[in-house]
Amino acid sequence: METPTITEPRWRIEATRPVSYEVRLCQDLFDHSNDQLVTAGAEDVLPSRRRLIVVDARVHALFRERLRGYLDARGMSYRLCVLETTEPAKTMDAVFRVLSAMDDFGLSRRREPVLAIGGGVLTDIVGLAASMYRRSTPYVRVPTTLIGMVDAGIGSKTGVNFNRHKNRLGSYHPGAVTLIDPAFLAALPARHLRNGLAEVLKMALIRDRGLFRLLAADGSRLVTERMQSRGSADDGAAAQTVMRLAIDGMLKELQPNLWEQRLDRIVDYGHTFSPTLEMRALPELLHGEAVAVDMALSLVLARRRGMLTDDELTGARTVLANLGLPEWHPVCRPALLAEALADTVRHRDGRQLIPLTEGIGRARFVDDVTVAELTAALAELRPAAGAAGDGAA
Amino acid sequence: METPTITEPRWRIEATRPVSYEVRLCQDLFDHSNDQLVTAGAEDVLPSRRRLIVVDARVHALFRERLRGYLDARGMSYRLCVLETTEPAKTMDAVFRVLSAMDDFGLSRRREPVLAIGGGVLTDIVGLAASMYRRSTPYVRVPTTLIGMVDAGIGSKTGVNFNRHKNRLGSYHPGAVTLIDPAFLAALPARHLRNGLAEVLKMALIRDRGLFRLLAADGSRLVTERMQSRGSADDGAAAQTVMRLAIDGMLKELQPNLWEQRLDRIVDYGHTFSPTLEMRALPELLHGEAVAVDMALSLVLARRRGMLTDDELTGARTVLANLGLPEWHPVCRPALLAEALADTVRHRDGRQLIPLTEGIGRARFVDDVTVAELTAALAELRPAAGAAGDGAA
Repeated sequence: METPTITEPRWRIEATRPVSYEVRLCQDLFDHSNDQLVTAGAEDVLPSRRRLIVVDARVHALFRERLRGYLDARGMSYRLCVLETTEPAKTMDAVFRVLSAMDDFGLSRRREPVLAIGGGVLTDIVGLAASMYRRSTPYVRVPTTLIGMVDAGIGSKTGVNFNRHKNRLGSYHPGAVTLIDPAFLAALPARHLRNGLAEVLKMALIRDRGLFRLLAADGSRLVTERMQSRGSADDGAAAQTVMRLAIDGMLKELQPNLWEQRLDRIVDYGHTFSPTLEMRALPELLHGEAVAVDMALSLVLARRRGMLTDDELTGARTVLANLGLPEWHPVCRPALLAEALADTVRHRDGRQLIPLTEGIGRARFVDDVTVAELTAALAELRPAAGAAGDGAA
Repeated sequence: METPTITEPRWRIEATRPVSYEVRLCQDLFDHSNDQLVTAGAEDVLPSRRRLIVVDARVHALFRERLRGYLDARGMSYRLCVLETTEPAKTMDAVFRVLSAMDDFGLSRRREPVLAIGGGVLTDIVGLAASMYRRSTPYVRVPTTLIGMVDAGIGSKTGVNFNRHKNRLGSYHPGAVTLIDPAFLAALPARHLRNGLAEVLKMALIRDRGLFRLLAADGSRLVTERMQSRGSADDGAAAQTVMRLAIDGMLKELQPNLWEQRLDRIVDYGHTFSPTLEMRALPELLHGEAVAVDMALSLVLARRRGMLTDDELTGARTVLANLGLPEWHPVCRPALLAEALADTVRHRDGRQLIPLTEGIGRARFVDDVTVAELTAALAELRPAAGAAGDGAA
C-alpha cells in the first residue's frame, strides 16, 4: 500500500492503475451451449443475470431472432438498445442515448457489463458512455465489422466526433473482453470489408512484411469471400492468418503505450491527414477509405524521400487498388492537407511525428514535412485519380 | 516493456498506468514574482505561454483585476472562460461550454494545462471536460472554497449530475497540480465555509480524534474568522492545523484506492443517503449540508447499535450545531432514505457498505441496515428539527 509523499506544505500522490483486458477469437457466439456472451466481463464478480445490450440497427435487423433466442435460452434478464450508427451520428447525442438507457436500466456499478454489438462506431460510443457512467462501468465488445475486429474494437480508446473534429472527445477505457466471431463478416457489405482491410494493410506496411505478402496474394479474394474460413481451402487459411496477424500486430503495438504517453505511434500511420479529410468528406469516405488516401500520400512522400523504392511504391499502390481502396478524393487539396497537419501537430504536442514507411514492413518518424512537399506528392496521385473523371478536381 | 500474453486464439493485454499529482499549500498566488500559476502542470513539457483559464463567475468578479494583472505581468497569452457554477448547473451543458472553449482556443494536447479557478463544482466540471478532450488533457486546480481545498479539489474524481442523480457521470482524472491558497477563504460567505467544515468534520469523525477536538474547541471561530492565519494568534495556528490535517487525512485515504477498485471507502461516510437527499432538496442544501444531515443520521444509527456512547453522540451533534450545520431537512423521510439506500447499493455493487463511526475517530462498515432502523433513527432527529418550526414535516 502506497502512501502520499509529504513534505509539507506539499503532497505528492503517486499510484499505478492496473488495466487488463482480453481479446478472444471465437465462434458460434449465439449457440445456446456457448456461455461466452453471458459470462464475459463478469467472471470475477457477484453473479447478475441482468444485461443491457446496445446493438447496431443493421446487426439487430439481421440477428435479432438469434440474439433473443440465445439470451432467453440462457435465462438472462435483458434490455436491447438499438442504435443507428454511422460516422455522422458518432456524436455525444448517441452517447447520451446510451447513458439514458443505462440509467433507465438501473445498471449496477461493476457487475453488469454492457454488451456492445456492432461496428467500431458503436463500440466507440458505448465505450465512452461506459467510461462516464458512475465514472466507469465495464462493457464487452462484440465487433461485427472487420475494422471493429482488427482496430476499433481491440484497443483502449473510445471516442466521438465533436465540432467536425474526428474523435475529439473520448477516453481510454477498453472493454473487459472483446469477442471476435468472424462469422459476422459473412453478412458485411464488400465496401465495409475493404474498409477494414485498409487498417490491416496499414499494419502490414508499418510492421509486417509477411502480412503484406498475404494481402498482395489474396487481397481481392479476402473481399469476395468475406474472410470466411472453408476448412481445407487455401483462402480459409489465409483469412485466418490475416485476421490473427492483424490483431496480434495491433495489440503488440498498443500494449506498451495504452494511454498514448508516447505520441510517436507507428499505428498513427495513415492517420496524420485522414482525420480532417474524413470529417470534411463526410459522409462520402468511410474511415478506412480516408486512411487509404492518407496512406497513398504517405507512400509517395516516402518514395520522394528515398525511403521506398519505385518498385515498393508500385507494389503497395497495387495492393491498395486490388483491395478496392481509394488513393485520392476531391477534398484532398494542399490547403486542406496543411490544415490537417496543423491540427495533428496540436494533437502530437507541437511535433509532426509522421510515421512513414522505410521499405515495406518498417516505419520511421519524420518531423519536417513541408506544404510544398505535400503539394508535390499530391500531384503524383492526382492525375491518376483525375483520369477517373473528376473534372472539378 | 510488457507484451501481450498470447495463447491463440486469445490475447490478454495487461498494463499499469502511472498516475501522479501534487497538492500544494501556497500563498500570494497572484504576486507577480510567484511563478506557480504559470508553471504548474507544465514543468516537464515543451514550454507554452498559452493558457485557457476557466474561472467561477463570483471569483472572477472579485479577483479579475489581480488575475489579469498577474497574467499580463508574466507575459502569458490567455483566454478567460467565466462560468456560473451552482449545483443545479453542474451538468453536461457546463462541460460542453468548457469543451467548446477548449476547442475554440485550439488547445494543445499535453502542454497547455487548463487552469480551473473556483469551487468544487467548477473543478469537477473542468476536470470532466479535461478528461474527455483529446481523451485527456492536463489541468490545474485552484480551489477557492474550503470544500474545494479539503475535498473536491484534491481527489481524482470529476463529475456532473445527470437525470437528477448526483455525479452520475464523470471520470477519474486528477488535476496535475492543486494550488491551495487559503487567502481565498477570506472572501467566502460564512455558509460556504461551513459547507467545507462538514467535510472536515467527516474526516475527524472517521479517522482523526485530534482533528475532532480542534473542531470542538474552535469550530465557530474558524467560521467567523474564515480560517485566516494571524501569525501569533491561536486561531491562526488552529486554522492552519485544521487545514493540514484535513488535507493529509483525505489524501492518505484516497491514495491506496484512487480508482475506487475497493468500494468499502470510509470517506463515503456521510455520502450514503446524501447524494439523493442533496438532489431532491436542490437548491436548498449545499453539498456539505446534505452530508451533515447524513452524518447526523449515521451518528444516531451508530449509537443505536452501541457503536457510540450517548456522550459521544451528544459531543458530535454539538460540534455539528456549533458549525451551524443542519441535522435534518423536510425531504428526509423514510421512503426517500430507502430509495437513497437502494441507489447506493447499486453504486456499491450490490452491498450496503455503510461506514459508521465506532467511537469518535474510527469507522467500520455495516451491511445490514433496515428501513425500520432508518425510520427509528430519523425519529430521534426529527422532533428536534421539527421544533425549529417546520410544520409540514
